[in-house]
Amino acid sequence: MPTALHAYTTLETRGLIEARPKSGFFVRARLADLVREPDCCAEKPKVSNLANLDPLDSLLSDHSDPKLVPLGVALPSAQLLPTARLGQMMGTLARRMGAAGGSYDVAPGSELLRKEIARRSLEWGCALKTDDLIVTNGATEALSLALRATCQPGDTVLVEAPTYFGLAHMLRELRLKALPIKVESSSGIDLDAVEAALRKKRVTACALISNFNNPTGVLIPDERKKRLVELATQHRVPLIEDDIYGDLQHEGARPRCLKSYDREGWVILCGSFSKTLAPGYRVGYIAGSQWQHQILNLKKCTSLANATLPSLAIAEFLKNGGYDRHLRKLRRLFREQVAQMREAIVESFPEGIGLSRPQGSFLLWCELPKSVDAVKLFQQARASGISIAPGPLFSVDGSFTHFIRLNCGYPWDARIERSVGILGDLVSRMSRK
Amino acid sequence: MPTALHAYTTLETRGLIEARPKSGFFVRARLADLVREPDCCAEKPKVSNLANLDPLDSLLSDHSDPKLVPLGVALPSAQLLPTARLGQMMGTLARRMGAAGGSYDVAPGSELLRKEIARRSLEWGCALKTDDLIVTNGATEALSLALRATCQPGDTVLVEAPTYFGLAHMLRELRLKALPIKVESSSGIDLDAVEAALRKKRVTACALISNFNNPTGVLIPDERKKRLVELATQHRVPLIEDDIYGDLQHEGARPRCLKSYDREGWVILCGSFSKTLAPGYRVGYIAGSQWQHQILNLKKCTSLANATLPSLAIAEFLKNGGYDRHLRKLRRLFREQVAQMREAIVESFPEGIGLSRPQGSFLLWCELPKSVDAVKLFQQARASGISIAPGPLFSVDGSFTHFIRLNCGYPWDARIERSVGILGDLVSRMSRK
Repeated sequence: MPTALHAYTTLETRGLIEARPKSGFFVRARLADLVREPDCCAEKPKVSNLANLDPLDSLLSDHSDPKLVPLGVALPSAQLLPTARLGQMMGTLARRMGAAGGSYDVAPGSELLRKEIARRSLEWGCALKTDDLIVTNGATEALSLALRATCQPGDTVLVEAPTYFGLAHMLRELRLKALPIKVESSSGIDLDAVEAALRKKRVTACALISNFNNPTGVLIPDERKKRLVELATQHRVPLIEDDIYGDLQHEGARPRCLKSYDREGWVILCGSFSKTLAPGYRVGYIAGSQWQHQILNLKKCTSLANATLPSLAIAEFLKNGGYDRHLRKLRRLFREQVAQMREAIVESFPEGIGLSRPQGSFLLWCELPKSVDAVKLFQQARASGISIAPGPLFSVDGSFTHFIRLNCGYPWDARIERSVGILGDLVSRMSRK
Repeated sequence: MPTALHAYTTLETRGLIEARPKSGFFVRARLADLVREPDCCAEKPKVSNLANLDPLDSLLSDHSDPKLVPLGVALPSAQLLPTARLGQMMGTLARRMGAAGGSYDVAPGSELLRKEIARRSLEWGCALKTDDLIVTNGATEALSLALRATCQPGDTVLVEAPTYFGLAHMLRELRLKALPIKVESSSGIDLDAVEAALRKKRVTACALISNFNNPTGVLIPDERKKRLVELATQHRVPLIEDDIYGDLQHEGARPRCLKSYDREGWVILCGSFSKTLAPGYRVGYIAGSQWQHQILNLKKCTSLANATLPSLAIAEFLKNGGYDRHLRKLRRLFREQVAQMREAIVESFPEGIGLSRPQGSFLLWCELPKSVDAVKLFQQARASGISIAPGPLFSVDGSFTHFIRLNCGYPWDARIERSVGILGDLVSRMSRK
C-alpha cells in the first residue's frame, strides 16, 4: 500500500498523472509534448564584430537578489548543492593541513584534483591523464585561456547560434570576431555550414557546447560529434569544447565528449563543477591538448594558481563525497523541474510558441511570437520581480529578438508557478500588439 | 636582570653585538654596512621582444619542495603567516553561511572585502572608495587585467631594470614589448629616462613596483613618486602600480602609493595579501581608475568571480583578526631576517660584491663578480639543494647575468646559514675561474 501511494505521488510530481476529486488518478495529457521545438535557423551566418552586445551587467548581478524570481542566470538552487558538506570538508582540510593550506598551488594545480578528474574522464570516453589537465578558475578561465592560446585579436571564431552569452562577451573583450552557425534542435550545429566555413578558411577556432547546449539544451549525437572532430582535424582548426553541463543528462548514460573522438589533439576540453557542486569555489579544468604548454604558461601569467583549499575540497568530494549519488539526485530533480516548467509554460503562454526539449541540464529555450521583443519582455518581467534571459544576449549579431531562456535550476514552487503565469500574460499582451 | 638579558639577546639576534667567551658582549662591526649597493645601471635602455626569457617553470615548482632551501621564490615562510586562524575563520564562515558559501561572488567581488581594503587605503594616502576596487585572483590577475585593459599586442610597456620576473613573463605572453629603464639603488627608476621615453611616445603604459621593489628592494622617495605621476598625467600614459610589498616597511610609517598622488586617474593600483596573509587564498585587488569599467568587464570574461569563502575569510581577518598586529610582527621578523642574511653573505661571499639595503620586504639583490654566471650558479646551487633566483630572470633582455636574488622570508636557522656558506664557496670558485 505505501509503495503504491508513493508511486502515485511520484507520477503526479512528474506531471504524468493527475488527481480528479472523488474519481481517482488519471493519466495526464502532457501539453508540453504537443508543442514544437524552437526554430533557431532563420538567420544566415554572418561575421559580426560584437560591438553592440549588452554586457549583461544586470543579469549577472541579479542572481544574488532574493527579491527576484531566479529564471535568468543558469544556476541551480544553492539548496540542491552539497555546500554544507563541502564547507565542512574545507574546514577539516584547513585544520589538517595547517600552514600548507595557505600556500600556493601553482598551475597546473592540485595533483589530487587532476587525478580525480582524469579518473572521471573515462566515463566521458576520454581516458585523460593527470598531466593532461590544468585546474582553472571555473570554465570561464578555461575558455578564456583556450581562446587566448589559439587566437589573436582580429581572428574569427566559429560559434553556435544561439551561443552561451559568456562566450559572446569573451570574444568581444578579446577583440575576436564571431561566425555564428545555426543549431538544429534535434542534432546541434549544422555540419555542412561548419564544413563550408572551414573549407573557406574563415575561422581560426571553433567554440561549442557539445552536451546540453546553453541555451538550446541540444545534445549533439555521437555520429555528428565524431564528424565534427574529423572536420576540425582535417582542416587543422582547434575545437574548443565546453562540457560544463555534460554530467547532467536526465536519463541513460553520461554523454561522450567531442574530446573522446580526438586522435590528433585538436580538441581543447573545458569544464567545471560550477553547475553541479559549488559555483563560488571557482574550480574548473582544461585539457589543453597540443596547446597544453602554452595554456599552462598563460594560466601562470593570468592568475598563477587556483585557491588551494577550494580545489582540495572539490577533490575530496569527488573522491569520498558520493559525487555520483549526488549527480543521480540532481539529474532526477532537473528532469522534473524542466518538465514542470515546460507544462506551466504551455499552459500560460499563447499558442504558437516553440519550446526546447532538453535531454539534460536545467535550461529551457523558448521561441515567442515574432512580435514579442524579448528585451522589452526582460524589462517588464524584471519590473514584476522576475529575472529572465532575453534571446539577443545569446547571439553575436542581435538576433533571437523573440526568444528567451528560462532557468529551471530551482525546485518547483508556487512562486515560480505564479511567475510563469505572469510571464505568459506579458507575452500574450505583447504578442497582441 | 631578565630585561637586561633579554636586551642582550635581542641585540645579539639582530647582529648588533657579539659575545666573546669570558669577556662579555661587544658591539659588532656590521660587515654588511661596509659593502656597497649593487649597480644596476650599466646597460642602456633598449626595446626587447622578450623572446629568450626562461619561463621559470623550475623556480615556481621548486617553492613547494621541502628538500630545497627556499632562497628562490619570493615567499615568506608559511609558519609566519596566520594560516591556522584564517582556516578557522573560513570554516566558521562556511558553517554560518550555509548554501550561500558556495554561491558566485561575481566581480567586482565581496563588498565586505572591498570596504576593508578601501578603509586601509587611507594609510597609503589614497582614500579609495569601495566601488573603486575589484577583487582579483592575486596581484597576478590584477596586473594582467591592467595590461590587457591598457595595451594591445605589439605595444611597448616601460618597466624597471631589473623588474619582477612575473611581469616580464606576462608581457611576453601578452605579446607586449618592454622598454627597461635603469633603477638607482637609492631612489628607484631614472626619471630623466622615463621622461625621455614618454616624450618620444615610445610606450603605451608603465608598470612599476613603487614600494620595496622586487628584486632591488628600492623604495621610491615621495618626491619622485609625485613627479612620476605628474609625468604620466602630462603624457596621458597609464601608470600600473604594483604595491604588493607596501605593507612591509621595516621601520616607520607605511609608505605612500603612487596612486596617492593621482589627481586625474592615470594610476592603476594593484595589490594582494599573498605576501602578508595567504598566497594560496588568491586574494588580490585592483583600483582601475579610468579603466575601471573595462577592467571589470575583462575580469568577468577572464574568471567571472573570485572564490567566495577565501575572499570573505581575508575580509574577516582584516576586520577582526588583528592584521596590524600581525604586520608589526612580520615587519620586525623580516627586518631581522634580512639583516642576518646580509651579514652572512658578506662573511662568506668574496670581496667586491654589491648588496641591496632594503628598507622593507624580505628580498636581497646581490651583484656578484662579473665573471660569475648567475644561471650556472643557480644550477650548481640547486644541485646542492639550494634554490636561488638568477638575475637574468629579472630582465627583459638577458642582462643581470652576474646578479642573484635571495629570499629572506624564512626564519634564520642553521640550514639557511649553511646554505649561504655553500653559495659563498660556489661564487668564490666561479669568480676565480
